[in-house]
Amino acid sequence: MKSDLWVEEKCGDYAARFRVTEVLFSGQSDFQSVDVVQTAGHGKMLLNDGLVMLTERDEFVYHDMITHVPLFVHPNPKSVLIIGGGDGGTAREVLRHAGVERVVMVEIDKMVVDASIEHLPQTASELSNERLELIIDDGVAFVANSDEKFDVVLVDSTDPIGPAQPLFGPDFYQNIHRVLNDDGIVVSQGESPWYHQEMQAKLVEIVSGIFDKTFIYNFSNMGYPGGLWSFTFATKGLHPIADFDADRVRQSGLNFEYYNADLHKGCFAIPSFQRKPLEAWLSSL
Amino acid sequence: MKSDLWVEEKCGDYAARFRVTEVLFSGQSDFQSVDVVQTAGHGKMLLNDGLVMLTERDEFVYHDMITHVPLFVHPNPKSVLIIGGGDGGTAREVLRHAGVERVVMVEIDKMVVDASIEHLPQTASELSNERLELIIDDGVAFVANSDEKFDVVLVDSTDPIGPAQPLFGPDFYQNIHRVLNDDGIVVSQGESPWYHQEMQAKLVEIVSGIFDKTFIYNFSNMGYPGGLWSFTFATKGLHPIADFDADRVRQSGLNFEYYNADLHKGCFAIPSFQRKPLEAWLSSL
Repeated sequence: MKSDLWVEEKCGDYAARFRVTEVLFSGQSDFQSVDVVQTAGHGKMLLNDGLVMLTERDEFVYHDMITHVPLFVHPNPKSVLIIGGGDGGTAREVLRHAGVERVVMVEIDKMVVDASIEHLPQTASELSNERLELIIDDGVAFVANSDEKFDVVLVDSTDPIGPAQPLFGPDFYQNIHRVLNDDGIVVSQGESPWYHQEMQAKLVEIVSGIFDKTFIYNFSNMGYPGGLWSFTFATKGLHPIADFDADRVRQSGLNFEYYNADLHKGCFAIPSFQRKPLEAWLSSL
Repeated sequence: MKSDLWVEEKCGDYAARFRVTEVLFSGQSDFQSVDVVQTAGHGKMLLNDGLVMLTERDEFVYHDMITHVPLFVHPNPKSVLIIGGGDGGTAREVLRHAGVERVVMVEIDKMVVDASIEHLPQTASELSNERLELIIDDGVAFVANSDEKFDVVLVDSTDPIGPAQPLFGPDFYQNIHRVLNDDGIVVSQGESPWYHQEMQAKLVEIVSGIFDKTFIYNFSNMGYPGGLWSFTFATKGLHPIADFDADRVRQSGLNFEYYNADLHKGCFAIPSFQRKPLEAWLSSL
């Protein structure tokens, strides 16, 4: 393979390019295209439908932030449901919490899981952990039919095109509310404040119509266009800062490359241009 | 000009590309190349030596953050020195503070100023404000020779290659310390936590050896590679959070697209991977 190969993700009139040294896997599932490439500067990279899902160099940012923010707000999370997350990175981080007894992960696309197990051991390392039940199924159908209750639900989805589209609808969040315990928290991949303002507003409006409290928090990684990226954080009553005890982070004995107790409080402070169009739906900090 | 023209900034094995519809200015000064292009999705863009300095779409992020964070920590900033900042965006934001009586801006490259006045009125709008003295000179020589005292110094520089290199040395910061009043603050463009870790460490080491307290704060915009970007914040004693009064932001009557009182406190919480190598030099939050 010639050395000047680049993978490019376009986002309107912007594009991010990463130098690629080898294509490790390239497949077309029933749902999307799945590629794993070796990049020159960012480790291995997973792409779904040509969009960067993760790079080994910075995947810790996304996986720290989707996991540890809610798991350190919930007072005693024992059961966690992950919707999506086929690369395994979110499950890996959830399973670092010793108090978590059961993780159910529902990924629609077996090809993502298989490709990750073969080519991305860094993220897939805990996919055969005995506390994890991995189900290959539609997450929307799963929450519609499940009678099980969870403390935390993490919606670790791709963008709302292709297979993830129903994950951005009200029925899905009604069912998540139903499968959550009384002190439950749901966190969802919330798109770019820069490039997906309408989608972000729609998601926040839907979630806040169903949950007691709704917030946005941000992170920044190298792989997603525009730098800044967000999660929605909704609860049946818990507050992400007032109910957060920084001592628990220290007492956990866990070390994080991105997450820390200061950042936990800081990440809920979002820029004015992002907050203003969402103001009507967001709970106060 | 053909419609599929892109401007590309490479950063190692990563590159960011913006679609360009027109080249408005292209010059070579004694110090660097200076280009202004019209992009399709991000307004006009200024590039020095091929590196993105700003786009009209998101310049408010950088200019809000370099300016309002220190100006709302200092109890009564009346005089501000800007080193660099030839596009005028930092001066524009400083001059929004009614209490600021005098701004001295020392830009080494007249071509940047002239190109901005002609092509970037959005940032250059206040360059003929009567409270501003614009000096075309070397900022390093200026602070070495100046007898004037300032409340706040903003080092709004390009990357430490080309003309900005001496701005990353200890002599420069010794002289800034000398021209600052007793409650003075200096904020400097602090590079990327991802791509410039050594440079960031060097700058923080130098600054913290001269100033009483040293901090890092972050922001994220669309135009800089890797998303996350940082400023160093050093003082003769003031603390950026303990000495910050959120009421003053409200009372100022100013509206900001990026900056707000929550974000002020949040932006000093930096990721663990960034904080750890700087821990020895940073003051505690």
